[in-house]
Amino acid sequence: MAAGSLQVAAGKEETLAGSATRRDFLRSVGAAGGAGALYSTMSALGLAPVAEAAATEFRPPQRSDFTLSGRAAGKVIVLGAGIAGLVTAYELRKAGYRVRILEARNRPGGRNWTVRGGTTETDLDGRTQRARFSRDQYMNAGPARLPQSHVTLEYCRELGVELEVFTNQNANAYIHHENAVGSLAGRPVRWRTAKADVYGYVSELLATATDQGALDQKLTADDKERLLAFLEGFGDIGGRADDWGYTGSERRGYSVEPGAGTESGTVLGPVPSLSDVFASRIGHRFTFEFGYDQAMLMFQPKGGMDRIPYALARAVGRERIVYGAEATAVTDRPDGAEVTWRDGRGRSHTERADFVVSAIPPMIAARLDHNLGADVTAALRTPSPVPVGKIGLEYRSRWWETDEHIYGGITPTDTDLATVWYPSYGYHGRRGTLIGYYNFGADALAYGRLTHAEREARALSRGVRIHGEKYRTELAASFSIAWHRTPFIEGGWVGWESQTGPEYRRLLEPAGHVYFAGDWLSHAIAWQHGAITSARKVVTELHERVMQG
Amino acid sequence: MAAGSLQVAAGKEETLAGSATRRDFLRSVGAAGGAGALYSTMSALGLAPVAEAAATEFRPPQRSDFTLSGRAAGKVIVLGAGIAGLVTAYELRKAGYRVRILEARNRPGGRNWTVRGGTTETDLDGRTQRARFSRDQYMNAGPARLPQSHVTLEYCRELGVELEVFTNQNANAYIHHENAVGSLAGRPVRWRTAKADVYGYVSELLATATDQGALDQKLTADDKERLLAFLEGFGDIGGRADDWGYTGSERRGYSVEPGAGTESGTVLGPVPSLSDVFASRIGHRFTFEFGYDQAMLMFQPKGGMDRIPYALARAVGRERIVYGAEATAVTDRPDGAEVTWRDGRGRSHTERADFVVSAIPPMIAARLDHNLGADVTAALRTPSPVPVGKIGLEYRSRWWETDEHIYGGITPTDTDLATVWYPSYGYHGRRGTLIGYYNFGADALAYGRLTHAEREARALSRGVRIHGEKYRTELAASFSIAWHRTPFIEGGWVGWESQTGPEYRRLLEPAGHVYFAGDWLSHAIAWQHGAITSARKVVTELHERVMQG
Repeated sequence: MAAGSLQVAAGKEETLAGSATRRDFLRSVGAAGGAGALYSTMSALGLAPVAEAAATEFRPPQRSDFTLSGRAAGKVIVLGAGIAGLVTAYELRKAGYRVRILEARNRPGGRNWTVRGGTTETDLDGRTQRARFSRDQYMNAGPARLPQSHVTLEYCRELGVELEVFTNQNANAYIHHENAVGSLAGRPVRWRTAKADVYGYVSELLATATDQGALDQKLTADDKERLLAFLEGFGDIGGRADDWGYTGSERRGYSVEPGAGTESGTVLGPVPSLSDVFASRIGHRFTFEFGYDQAMLMFQPKGGMDRIPYALARAVGRERIVYGAEATAVTDRPDGAEVTWRDGRGRSHTERADFVVSAIPPMIAARLDHNLGADVTAALRTPSPVPVGKIGLEYRSRWWETDEHIYGGITPTDTDLATVWYPSYGYHGRRGTLIGYYNFGADALAYGRLTHAEREARALSRGVRIHGEKYRTELAASFSIAWHRTPFIEGGWVGWESQTGPEYRRLLEPAGHVYFAGDWLSHAIAWQHGAITSARKVVTELHERVMQG
Repeated sequence: MAAGSLQVAAGKEETLAGSATRRDFLRSVGAAGGAGALYSTMSALGLAPVAEAAATEFRPPQRSDFTLSGRAAGKVIVLGAGIAGLVTAYELRKAGYRVRILEARNRPGGRNWTVRGGTTETDLDGRTQRARFSRDQYMNAGPARLPQSHVTLEYCRELGVELEVFTNQNANAYIHHENAVGSLAGRPVRWRTAKADVYGYVSELLATATDQGALDQKLTADDKERLLAFLEGFGDIGGRADDWGYTGSERRGYSVEPGAGTESGTVLGPVPSLSDVFASRIGHRFTFEFGYDQAMLMFQPKGGMDRIPYALARAVGRERIVYGAEATAVTDRPDGAEVTWRDGRGRSHTERADFVVSAIPPMIAARLDHNLGADVTAALRTPSPVPVGKIGLEYRSRWWETDEHIYGGITPTDTDLATVWYPSYGYHGRRGTLIGYYNFGADALAYGRLTHAEREARALSRGVRIHGEKYRTELAASFSIAWHRTPFIEGGWVGWESQTGPEYRRLLEPAGHVYFAGDWLSHAIAWQHGAITSARKVVTELHERVMQG
């Protein structure tokens, strides 16, 4: 996996000079295309050469495009009020397109869904849950974190959605490996302690090998000296006289906190052996926070992730969104396209537009009655829905803060919980809501087959092994989601075997007057950034077509 | 330094069994002492054996202590309304002690000081600044971050001071080493990029040495296999067939962000050589976030750090704090102690109490006219004040967010700025306030000698080398502090050569009826935690004395 992703990465690399060339190329494309690709800043080429360039700049369609050209904006029907559908409508509206969004559910957002007290949901198996969360308590059932580089933040700025830090990583959270080998198996280890020990032993080993000359083929004398100086600090290890030995450090944390007078603190001990540390696989978790998408700092809207779709829906206009409207057929016509849909009372409607943008999950779009061709149906069926589950657990007290000094963050486990999340809001409040599991694949399928009560019981039985009986006794309310069993959504996201094959490429092009949009048509699948960039791409292409028509 | 701190750490270590023994000992002390040391939770010994134990539990004096014993609470004069003085008064009040705080300045907090628009300050050199920050903009001139383990958070909970994340670390912030060797010298490198490259090369080197058998004396066959599996992921390196080579990875970041359709992103390049990476010393910065005190997550009060002293001052009661009251003399008497102080109009007052708690900086206390003995004066003069400087820079736009995708965090430099901080509040707002330098020692002395205008000019001249001309052109207002030139404070904090020597120990004991409190009498110097635990220690000892008297 590391090697595989490396090969991909190596293929993507380029020199700064190459980057400039590519940029010039894209700029020329942008100039030709009217609303095409333009880079927003040149900072990556200038003073701060290692900065990321801004993503391809998007130029929203504008009313002046029409006043200047004499053309008319036309009408667009959008299927789905998820992020891709909302952004499509929002951006088209800026140029005066008449838009209508048909949304099968009774709220905007799709998978961007914040569950609060009173939220009711019936799954595809006919099981109904009603959330009993307290006032001000919520769970983000779908997306929950925003990287700093994602365009989603630009929409938050534009729409006035306030942000706060999402605590993706916390030195005080645990790593819990029940199925590891050695003395750490089954023992929750704080991230800070895990790092102290892993980096300590890594430094001891590499310093020893370096100092013994084992790497003289790769290292100059200067390199060796600098590497050894780095390792002494990185691992908090002894020097040459101590054989570069790692014997623990205050980075592990304290069993008695340093304080007043003579209380200099008691460093947590004992230090596990090198064999136990590597057998525990705790170090494998560290890469989580190196990932481009997952590295801190990350952000969330204050009050719930659904602040984003609700702000978009407000901006689009309530009167332009029909809820409870399930599309059943899409027909391309020589001069437009037609959608048939069923309203909340079961009545069928057929509506005509210049264009249709299908911003619903591909496996659901594949089941529409349509005339777009068998290749489109086959392409829509190609990506595989990914089973994903999550449970929110509201507690009567914030015991993780008061008893364990954990203010946010995530504990990864090797049980079927996958991860346990501590809340990034309401610090020091009376109550708080954890995510008790956020799992995928087989684990999500297993939980998805259970009733909600069974899911809760199973999640609690694992959680007590990390946090003790309070994990059960302090529970006040819970709500679980199995995205693959959720009507009109049917998956956490989808996975493509290939994003260069003909099926993927087919759906990047319109089928007559019908376009497809969604995170599944991007290289940021399962991120709102993917949905937004896909919507922007469709908006750009559709508008260019109108302007050229 | 690494080896030195290791030796200290090794001396502090103990087994879990040893920890329990120590705990039993402390509990017995607590039982004998009435309000002594008791541990709050046993979680560290139980299910989560690697959890830190809560710090020694503090039992505040209570009114019932007196009603049950028939004794009376008495009167205490506290010198200084910094955190130590405020907490002393706050806790003594819980048992009904009559307290009066004499504070030389016109606000509570001491070094805990939030500068807002309108704040005026005249330094010891007679230079006056008036902050022109916009509404809602502020800088925390003193303490700015709270670790999760510090008792300061318990006061925030108790006093209703709301918290938000302090962004101590950000993968998108830079490391800026102008004086390094090699191709990275003078180039700002994102933390994420620095980690990708350092961990990549460290992994390549250690995997090579391990696989060649260079570490067979330290590693079993199982260890080797597990270590190699760890390193492949940790460094995102190639496998054995690729000679474990590091050639870059998406963890470096992108020059073109992955997005819709065929935009799979362009990984930032080129990858610097191993020699350049270690010559740059970027890796030396990583240990910052491993520190027990500095590891994320960290927190700050919403609205400014001074929410804490103002909440404490409110709880103590406005009528019990005299501002503009400069103590000039302290006299111990057989049955109490006396303080002479000068009010804001220059009038002198002498006031009697049962006890005095001196919670002002030691070098200032040493200058009081007192009868506490030459050993006390000498002890108070022993610790050295540390020069510390900070500048707040308010900008008209939040260009670090919009142009560079930096939402909080810190850029360390090897210039005299030391560090540049991006704000942890007001994301996406119209304006924002950076910390342009936060420096110590010689750097702080150098800036401290300058006028404010000169400090600003010097800070900007360094900052533009990281962020470009906008660092100068977007500036709206600034305010600087040189703590060592600040009246009644005279230092960022103090340093002891020894915290086991007779001078330190002398001041842990009362001089007659006069006690000393402050972070400088703790093992958490420069942290509010140190001030609070010191205050609690004095309160406990003073109250025990009264109860036994």
